Order: sequence, then C-alpha cells, then structure tokens
Amino acid sequence: MTSLADLPIRDDLRGQTPYGAPQKPVRIALNVNENTHPVPAEVIAHVTQAVERELRSINRYPDREFTALRKHLADYLGGGVTPAQVWAANGSNEVIQHILQAFGGPGRSVLGFPPTYSMHSIIASGTGTRWIAADRDDGYRITEATAVAAIDRHDPDLVFLCAPNNPTGTPLGLDVIEAVHDASRGIVMVDEAYAEFMPEGEPSALSLLEGRPRLVVSRTMSKAFAFAGGRLGYLAADPAVIDALRLVRLPYHLSALTQAAAVAALQHAPAMLATVGAIREQRDRLVVELARLGYDPHESWANFVLFGGVADPRGVFEYLLAHDILIRDLSIPNHLRVTAGTEAETTEFLEVLGRMGR
Amino acid sequence: MTSLADLPIRDDLRGQTPYGAPQKPVRIALNVNENTHPVPAEVIAHVTQAVERELRSINRYPDREFTALRKHLADYLGGGVTPAQVWAANGSNEVIQHILQAFGGPGRSVLGFPPTYSMHSIIASGTGTRWIAADRDDGYRITEATAVAAIDRHDPDLVFLCAPNNPTGTPLGLDVIEAVHDASRGIVMVDEAYAEFMPEGEPSALSLLEGRPRLVVSRTMSKAFAFAGGRLGYLAADPAVIDALRLVRLPYHLSALTQAAAVAALQHAPAMLATVGAIREQRDRLVVELARLGYDPHESWANFVLFGGVADPRGVFEYLLAHDILIRDLSIPNHLRVTAGTEAETTEFLEVLGRMGR
Repeated sequence: MTSLADLPIRDDLRGQTPYGAPQKPVRIALNVNENTHPVPAEVIAHVTQAVERELRSINRYPDREFTALRKHLADYLGGGVTPAQVWAANGSNEVIQHILQAFGGPGRSVLGFPPTYSMHSIIASGTGTRWIAADRDDGYRITEATAVAAIDRHDPDLVFLCAPNNPTGTPLGLDVIEAVHDASRGIVMVDEAYAEFMPEGEPSALSLLEGRPRLVVSRTMSKAFAFAGGRLGYLAADPAVIDALRLVRLPYHLSALTQAAAVAALQHAPAMLATVGAIREQRDRLVVELARLGYDPHESWANFVLFGGVADPRGVFEYLLAHDILIRDLSIPNHLRVTAGTEAETTEFLEVLGRMGR
Repeated sequence: MTSLADLPIRDDLRGQTPYGAPQKPVRIALNVNENTHPVPAEVIAHVTQAVERELRSINRYPDREFTALRKHLADYLGGGVTPAQVWAANGSNEVIQHILQAFGGPGRSVLGFPPTYSMHSIIASGTGTRWIAADRDDGYRITEATAVAAIDRHDPDLVFLCAPNNPTGTPLGLDVIEAVHDASRGIVMVDEAYAEFMPEGEPSALSLLEGRPRLVVSRTMSKAFAFAGGRLGYLAADPAVIDALRLVRLPYHLSALTQAAAVAALQHAPAMLATVGAIREQRDRLVVELARLGYDPHESWANFVLFGGVADPRGVFEYLLAHDILIRDLSIPNHLRVTAGTEAETTEFLEVLGRMGR
C-alpha cells in the first residue's frame, strides 16, 4: 500500500497531520462555537423555496459576482457599507486565504498575536506567507504600546487581529486597531467572527473603514448567525481591496445554492440572531459559575469562555466526553474552552463539571 | 478614490485583470460548455427535499470528511473506485488548486500542453507553481513521442493532461497517458471534465488508476451532469493522494448544502445524464455543418466544437451576440468555440452563422 511518505508532496507538508476539531457524535457539542439553538422553521421554509427556485437553472454556472448576496450582506452590515465594499467566500477561512493570496505569499509576512484563531497561521503557511507571532499583554490583552512595538520591530506586510479574540474571548479596543493601522504599512485585517456577541452598542471595526483603504473587517455567518453548515464568510473593505481579491479567487467560487441560501437567510436576520441575547446570558453565567467552581475563566465578548486553573485538561475533557459533552482542548496549558450553548446545555455542562470536582 | 495600484498587492498580480468569460444575459448561451437542457423536475424535487432536511441543522458545521458524498461519487464512477480514493471540492478549479498546493508550489513546476483549460496555468500561477508549456502535434493531438520528449526535457514535478481536451475537443489515448506516467517522476493529473461525452464505450483514465499511485483523474458535475451551479468537482486517486489533499484543504470546505444537493443529484444520475446522447448528436452535427459552411471544425469528443477558418473571430462573435447568441472567443487566431446545445439552440446558431456568410 502506498503511504503519504511515498508521494512527492511538498517538503513543508511532510509529517503533518490535517487540522481539525474531533468530529464526535455527542448529545451536547460545545466545541466549535456554533449557535446551538435550532434554526427557526420559517427560515428553513423560506431558504428551501429559494434553493428550489435556484435548482431550476442549476445546469448553469452561478453569478460569478454574487451580486444579490453582496447587496444583502452590505445591507446587513449597515453603516453605509456598499455592495462594492463586500466580498464573500466559502467560509471565512477562504476569505482569509484570498487576502493572503493577494497581499501575502512567498517573501511576505503576516503578524498575529497568539493564542488566536489557529487557521490564521495555518492559512499563512498554506499560502507561503511567513507567520510572525507577537506577544500579548497580561490576560491575553493587547495594548496600543505592545501592538505598535511589535509592528515597529517586525515591519510585517499584513497584520491579523481578532476582535473579540478566539480562543480567549478577549475584547480589543478600536483605539488599538487604529494604532495598528497607523503604525503599519500593509493590510490590517480584523477578524470579527464573533462581533455579534459583543455587548450591545459596542462599535465594530467597520466604523473605522472610511478613509482607511488598508483596513479589512472579516465576518462570518457561522457563529451568531447560526449558518455554519452554509459556509459563508465575508468581509468589508475599500472597493480596491475587493478588486484585488477578484484577481485571486477561483471563478464561480460561490455556488448558486450557497448564494441563494445565504440571501434568503439574511432576509431573516432578526430571526436568525434572536438567540444572541440568550447566548450572551449563558456566556456571562459560565464566567460566574466557572469561577464559583474554582476555575479561572477569562473575560469574554464572544460565545465561548476560556477557563484556566484546570490541573488536567485531558482528564476533564475525557470526563465530559464520557458524559456526552464535547468541549475544546486547545493545548493551552491548564486551560479548556467551552461554547455557551442553550440554557439547558450550559446547565448540564456545569452540573457534570461540578460533580467531577477539582 | 483608492485604486488597486495604490494597494500593497503582490508584484506578480500588478496590472492583471480577473479571469472570466463575459457574463452577458442572452437567450442562447453556448459559451461555457454547460449542459443547456433543463434539469428534470423530479430531480429538483428530490434535491429540494434533501436540502430542506439539511437546513434543520444548518447551525452546525458540515461533515468535514463529506462521507456520504464520497461514497456516492465512488459508486457513480464505478470500476472498483472506493470512497477512500475520492476527493471533492467547490468545482474542479478548487480540486486542481488542492493538487497544486500539495504537490506543486514555489520551486516546483507543472507541465501542460496548451491550448488547454486556461485555469490550469492560472491556478499554477496562483499557487506559485512554475507553468511549463509544451507543444502539441498537428491538429492539437499529443503523441507518445511528443509527450515523453517534453517530460524528458523539462523534468516537471507535475504533468497536467486534459482528455478530451478543452478548448479543442481533442481525444487523448490511454497509451499516451500511460507513457506520460511512466516517463515522469511526479503527479500526473488527467482532467476528464468532459469524459461523459466521449464515444460510448471509450475507456477513461480511471481504468489506469490501479497500481499507479501518482495518477489522478479529475471530474466535474458541471458539464454532462448539468450541475454547474452546484459547484462540485472531484477526483479519484490512490488513498495516499487523498491524505495529502487533507493537509491543504481548508476545513469544512464543502458546505452541508453542497454535500446534500450533490448526493441527491447523484442518486438521479441516469436522469441527469439522459441528454448526453442528444448532446453528442448536436456536437457531431456542428462538425458536419460548420464544415459545410466553409469553416474548419476540429474533431471533438467533448460537448463543444472549436472551429478554425474564421477570418474575423471578433466580428463573428459580435454578430452572433447581436442575435442573442453567446459563444466563446479564446484568442486562438482565426478560431471560435461553440457549445453543443439543444437541437433548437444548435439550429439557430447554425442558421444565424450561415446567414452571416463568410
């Protein structure tokens, strides 16, 4: 039998194993920060209708410019964002890949602040972009001074921020984003995958786009929007950035079904986001209760909580799994991450964890 | 206003324009080799049902291993191909990108035989793989001797073949594929996007997979299968090749809707392919009638015909477009390409072209 090692794969791939959270069939999955609430029936009905309509011409290639989808995403973002400022792809991973293909690549570098979304460095590597890891301050925070010092020292071609940060949940102030932008010469991407979970009224980096053509704000329909299976990531930036992404995207990268389903779902944005308040409550409850159980939860503006003080992360992970509850071990020493689920899911997680004792 | 030139894009992208066949709303579109027959109503109904079922858990990430889809694709290919030998992505463009990310990239080269599918060299460039263009023989054919000489001379890391070839329609013998495989040290990909249009009973390169772990055969649901809007490309190869592709794919690259829709469509393969015979007839009719009109059509085993003897390709293209018929100008001197459509579409194309005179 032929093995991977027998094949002429690229040298930098030798010995690697594929990325991936474990795919285990469990009753309570709190591991990949999905919105765990069921999708409203009226949305399913409307998306189904939209898909059926699209199937009548499924023998034809889709709109390469995903015109209707860009319009609906712009409307959803609001704040004056126009369709010409919007880009989308099959998940924010592909959006990030497009950014790196256009502005990174061999001979270029991207600066990030780990621990952060692990795909940032993986996609950097996949596109031949050098990944530079800068330090965070205490409590996973990033101050202006720390960020600017890292940029001055490394002079990266791109800077990736994550606000709020995954997997720590840490907020990031707009003042830091502005300072990073002003200190750098390249593209600054703010990954706002979890922005909808920020406290009500907190401004997004979208409010900084005007007059900053090097700033890019990425979003996803996979988290608050409860559409992870639909694989739709997007971003807003200057129209010139969008032109650059057109040079690297594969033609017809978004299927007719993806476009139609996402447009139909966006037309139900209030229904799809109706659970965000309840999720925020469970997140805040997790912080309080995990502390009460003796753990060290970190402040979170996202739909998950990273908690320290775990003597044996593997042991806790396996204990929960034996009780049909899946959370995430990200190999941060003495830490685990748990998604804020429904009230019932959160209750069961806390009860099982509490019964385990420390 | 910021322009693309003001942004820090990669140097090799400067001055480029995005790939793309013109997207013009016309009555008769014979430009991108779609199956122009309407999709059967019972297939639409079944795919709709499958999508609706999937929407109930659309808040969850899809199966990263697209297990059911790989099984159905293996069954469709037949000939002993197993699910472990199957890979899929959002269109064969992404399949090809995965191949180049795993086995090509900076410092590596891929040999092709233009004129061929234009995305082969574009994706090579996008992944930093050096594209080597080798010559064809007369009538766009490739003989064993010509192919082997090119491989001996250039020693490429990959070889891309296209059988039948796009945009010329030229058949490629299995003996040539075997010779290319034996002469080369790297991955040999045979792009069989149009394989279903070959004459009945002609063998596919799939029959060569056994014992050749460096051979890859790519396919698509976009052509004969009448599913271009669904964006589903796939390939068959040794399971070790599939393992290599797992290292470079973005996690969850195939949406739950794509997987469910493709599986449901594959369950109706006979209905989806029912028009292939009629399309072959129209293709053969185009060859006969274009010759009768004084053009030089090339032999085609695909669902399109490339024809020479066009004094003014731009003029003919525009004349047809003015009559609501869109075909393809691929910048091959004195040539145009037309898709074999329905009988009515083919008739109208030939009549309008005939009226124009030469």
